[in-house]
Amino acid sequence: MRPLRRQRHSWTLIMSKEMIIGVLTASDRASQDVYEDISGPAIETLLGELLLSPWRVSRRVVPDGIESVREALVTMADHDGCGLVLTTGGTGPSPRDLTPEATLAVLDKEMPGFGEAMRTASLAEVPTAILSRQTAGIRGRTLIINLPGKPASIRTNLLAVFGAVPYCLELIGAGWIDTNPALCLPFRPRQEAATR
Amino acid sequence: MRPLRRQRHSWTLIMSKEMIIGVLTASDRASQDVYEDISGPAIETLLGELLLSPWRVSRRVVPDGIESVREALVTMADHDGCGLVLTTGGTGPSPRDLTPEATLAVLDKEMPGFGEAMRTASLAEVPTAILSRQTAGIRGRTLIINLPGKPASIRTNLLAVFGAVPYCLELIGAGWIDTNPALCLPFRPRQEAATR
Amino acid sequence: MRPLRRQRHSWTLIMSKEMIIGVLTASDRASQDVYEDISGPAIETLLGELLLSPWRVSRRVVPDGIESVREALVTMADHDGCGLVLTTGGTGPSPRDLTPEATLAVLDKEMPGFGEAMRTASLAEVPTAILSRQTAGIRGRTLIINLPGKPASIRTNLLAVFGAVPYCLELIGAGWIDTNPALCLPFRPRQEAATR
Repeated sequence: MRPLRRQRHSWTLIMSKEMIIGVLTASDRASQDVYEDISGPAIETLLGELLLSPWRVSRRVVPDGIESVREALVTMADHDGCGLVLTTGGTGPSPRDLTPEATLAVLDKEMPGFGEAMRTASLAEVPTAILSRQTAGIRGRTLIINLPGKPASIRTNLLAVFGAVPYCLELIGAGWIDTNPALCLPFRPRQEAATR
Repeated sequence: MRPLRRQRHSWTLIMSKEMIIGVLTASDRASQDVYEDISGPAIETLLGELLLSPWRVSRRVVPDGIESVREALVTMADHDGCGLVLTTGGTGPSPRDLTPEATLAVLDKEMPGFGEAMRTASLAEVPTAILSRQTAGIRGRTLIINLPGKPASIRTNLLAVFGAVPYCLELIGAGWIDTNPALCLPFRPRQEAATR
Repeated sequence: MRPLRRQRHSWTLIMSKEMIIGVLTASDRASQDVYEDISGPAIETLLGELLLSPWRVSRRVVPDGIESVREALVTMADHDGCGLVLTTGGTGPSPRDLTPEATLAVLDKEMPGFGEAMRTASLAEVPTAILSRQTAGIRGRTLIINLPGKPASIRTNLLAVFGAVPYCLELIGAGWIDTNPALCLPFRPRQEAATR
């Protein structure tokens, strides 16, 4: 019985540990207070609806650009202890939209399925979803996902992929999250995966 | 009233300026006159159906290959003043199919959503759509899109993505085009984007 | 009449030549006999259902990792004479999942349509299909396709793309295969392509 009880104990510890979720807004104007960042708070509100397990947010606002976004992503993944980082802004075709390039520069592994699934879901709403260059991937024990800049699109995009996020966080050792089944049914292919 | 009238004036100028659209055929046989290029004219005919605003075509035919396609794309984007360049041919798995490689070599930013949406649309018609390696992206103020070689596929592919093209051309400063709503409803997410 | 008869003759030769299909299992545990490889045999069984033309399998089991998978792919493509190589395992987000990186390292041309179509088909079954990083492409006269590790997913993924495989093998000069129309209708856009 001993090993089983020990496992249960550590399992309870893992499940009670709060997940730190980074929310990074890339925007020249929001970073200069020309206007208020509404995308970051929109993501935080959506996470509040989605998550049933303990979590807290770590928010940053930086100007558009490869260097600014790259540095913020490295800090959030390597120093702030974020298991998940969601970016918003900078994924379009305009010259200052450089968030995907910054993201690719810090990833160990790109995961093309996230961008594909988000564009497919957005495309059912707006034809310009084709223009989004969002990507996602793994850096160490952190999953990084690019979201669009507009609050309405953020919801469509995050809900399109969030069912795969809890299992991904487990596989990379980022920790455990539990989601509201009314919004998103988390899928864990093998139950034993949760106890590795 | 002054600023508004001035804006209207410049707006009229922008809208009346013709868009130069490059049509580049990559084909060993068409470039050597072994057979007639039918893909380039098919694109030109389709553009005639699609566009209501002023435009003119700049057509080139080059042999397959990275260097030949790369040089033609640079000339059309940087010297011929094309806001949009559509390539045809060279996107399959055969050894001489190198148009995507040539395109990636000249792009500032790849836009994966175009290739995904075109393959998805083609896949509803032919299973071999999977074999197309088409991509698209931005070079300076030019949007470059790879189309397949066959006239029937060209139509399916271009109509699958053209709804996103007018807004993209605005965002990158390439100019204004207006499309025939019977074939393609151009989508412009924010009206103010048109007046930036 | 001579050329036609000669062509028919060589055509018969091409069609009667057996296709060598490589099946590569990437798995630390299967390669160390910690457990039995069930994915490789599952692919072989599925190929038996799919193919009507002569073929034989060349199977290998290697540990996860870029070097191990890369070396096996090069051997199977360049020395074992495989026209088609199917990998299984190592396509997820875990640290040891490195099969897509190894595959990209040996490809002359990536074919993004395969990964997109396989993820789309899997996504209809499980939301975690987003996490698969499978890709495919051409090395010389060999088509390499990454499949997932689980037997149930292998079937979904391979059937989603196999309709495009026979024509692709012809285009790259890998040879001829014929498939069971009850499971998969091979599509050959131009009949003349078969006689090139």
